[in-house]
Amino acid sequence: MKLVPLFDRVVLKQLVAEETTKSGIVLPGQAKEKPQQAEVIAVGPGGVVDGKEITMQVKVGDKVIYSKYSGTDVELEEEKFVVVKQNDILAVIE
Amino acid sequence: MKLVPLFDRVVLKQLVAEETTKSGIVLPGQAKEKPQQAEVIAVGPGGVVDGKEITMQVKVGDKVIYSKYSGTDVELEEEKFVVVKQNDILAVIE
Amino acid sequence: MKLVPLFDRVVLKQLVAEETTKSGIVLPGQAKEKPQQAEVIAVGPGGVVDGKEITMQVKVGDKVIYSKYSGTDVELEEEKFVVVKQNDILAVIE
Amino acid sequence: MKLVPLFDRVVLKQLVAEETTKSGIVLPGQAKEKPQQAEVIAVGPGGVVDGKEITMQVKVGDKVIYSKYSGTDVELEEEKFVVVKQNDILAVIE
Amino acid sequence: MKLVPLFDRVVLKQLVAEETTKSGIVLPGQAKEKPQQAEVIAVGPGGVVDGKEITMQVKVGDKVIYSKYSGTDVELEEEKFVVVKQNDILAVIE
Amino acid sequence: MKLVPLFDRVVLKQLVAEETTKSGIVLPGQAKEKPQQAEVIAVGPGGVVDGKEITMQVKVGDKVIYSKYSGTDVELEEEKFVVVKQNDILAVIE
Amino acid sequence: MKLVPLFDRVVLKQLVAEETTKSGIVLPGQAKEKPQQAEVIAVGPGGVVDGKEITMQVKVGDKVIYSKYSGTDVELEEEKFVVVKQNDILAVIE
Repeated sequence: MKLVPLFDRVVLKQLVAEETTKSGIVLPGQAKEKPQQAEVIAVGPGGVVDGKEITMQVKVGDKVIYSKYSGTDVELEEEKFVVVKQNDILAVIE
Repeated sequence: MKLVPLFDRVVLKQLVAEETTKSGIVLPGQAKEKPQQAEVIAVGPGGVVDGKEITMQVKVGDKVIYSKYSGTDVELEEEKFVVVKQNDILAVIE
Repeated sequence: MKLVPLFDRVVLKQLVAEETTKSGIVLPGQAKEKPQQAEVIAVGPGGVVDGKEITMQVKVGDKVIYSKYSGTDVELEEEKFVVVKQNDILAVIE
Repeated sequence: MKLVPLFDRVVLKQLVAEETTKSGIVLPGQAKEKPQQAEVIAVGPGGVVDGKEITMQVKVGDKVIYSKYSGTDVELEEEKFVVVKQNDILAVIE
Repeated sequence: MKLVPLFDRVVLKQLVAEETTKSGIVLPGQAKEKPQQAEVIAVGPGGVVDGKEITMQVKVGDKVIYSKYSGTDVELEEEKFVVVKQNDILAVIE
Repeated sequence: MKLVPLFDRVVLKQLVAEETTKSGIVLPGQAKEKPQQAEVIAVGPGGVVDGKEITMQVKVGDKVIYSKYSGTDVELEEEKFVVVKQNDILAVIE
Repeated sequence: MKLVPLFDRVVLKQLVAEETTKSGIVLPGQAKEKPQQAEVIAVGPGGVVDGKEITMQVKVGDKVIYSKYSGTDVELEEEKFVVVKQNDILAVIE
């Protein structure tokens, strides 16, 4: 089973956030609000979305930074994914 | 009796959410806010919606992930459905 | 006297909601928030509404499901109606 | 003195609302939120409003139902009027 | 010194509101929320505003009704004015 | 060092607000919410902003009235400026 | 590793804010809400963003003023960056 996103949506898998400090302490609270690193798992076809032509700029395998609040958590066969609109991806990490 | 959606609306039937953990405990609270798996029961004709041309991408029988908050619960002859706009469907499960 | 809706508005008459359970108990509270079944009483002419061409898809006599919150209650000669925009009608019941 | 509305605005004069029940009791509270019957006193010229071409559909003397919350109360020479945009008129009463 | 409004803005000078009742009592509270009568002091050039062509319909000397909440109070050389967008003017008083 | 605004932005320098009354008392509170007189220090190039062609109407040296809430305070080399969009300038003082 | 912004996004690195007064006291509270000086580290390709053609006006190395609230904090290899849309950059410092 796999997720095939519609329109300008992108399926991401979060990279393990290094949210422990150097001394190994887990940072709570505010840390949850930081944008996330993720890998692109699937990319929608783009096309006309809400009356605007959208070309997909990211591809499967890209590592990206996205704004966590805009995504929707999805769970499929006990694996967790995040579905975002491409516009919620801020930058690609090269 | 059946529901015939207008415009870009889609009638969904929720798949039974596996909201019990492996040990059989029902997860309350936050679990209610997760997106939902559903089967497509009926698809509107698309066309010009709110001044924008919309082509329907899903078809009857598709299993989809949608954002629960955007749908409207509908009950017809003691069966429950959810009516969403196609744009609220995040991905098709293949 | 009759109501002649303007633009893309539709006059509905609610069908008696079966809000009693099988054992005859009236469901309060949350039940009030559910979408409603209604019959179409009058249909506006459509045309250019808010700069967008709108074609009317419903006709007098259709039974429809609409989202209750979007309608406006109207009373004329002691009969109650609901005036909605066509876009607030989710599906036709066939 | 008279009010000459600009653009797509319409000047209404509320018809006396029959807000007493058959037994003569005035209905308070919720009754205030109901849409209103009114007579059209003056109609703006229409034309391009907010970048969209608007044709006026109502005429002086029409009896209409409008959504009370959208109007602005105006008082001129001790007479009370309501100025609404045509789009806030739900239906004409014929 | 004078105020030359930009775009679709209009400079108004409030006419003395007759906010005393016949018996001479000043009405407080709710009275402040009523729309206002004013005289047009200066009119912007119109033209393309926010991507839309706007033609100015009012002229200097017009007496108008406007919605008080939309205006901005301005004081110049100890005289008070209100600057509104033309679209906040509801009607001309003739 | 100088500020070169982008797009339709304008750099203003507030004129000393005469917020003391004739008898010399500083007016607190509500006085802070009044629009401001300012001098134009720098003007952006205009052009296509948010999909709309914008022509700059103000020029360096103009004295203007603007709505204080829309501006952003900027400090450069211990001098204070306000950066606004041209559309937040209400009128030029001539 | 480097950040390659998508569309009209710009990666900024905040310049050390001189938030101490002349006598060396750090200003707390309100100071946090002031716009920020930053250096441009990477610039997206522009192009059609949300249906509008956007040309990038800033370039790598520019010192800019931006509105802090609109940016998203990003951390990569223990260095902190801010990703903003070009439209959130108020002015270039020359």
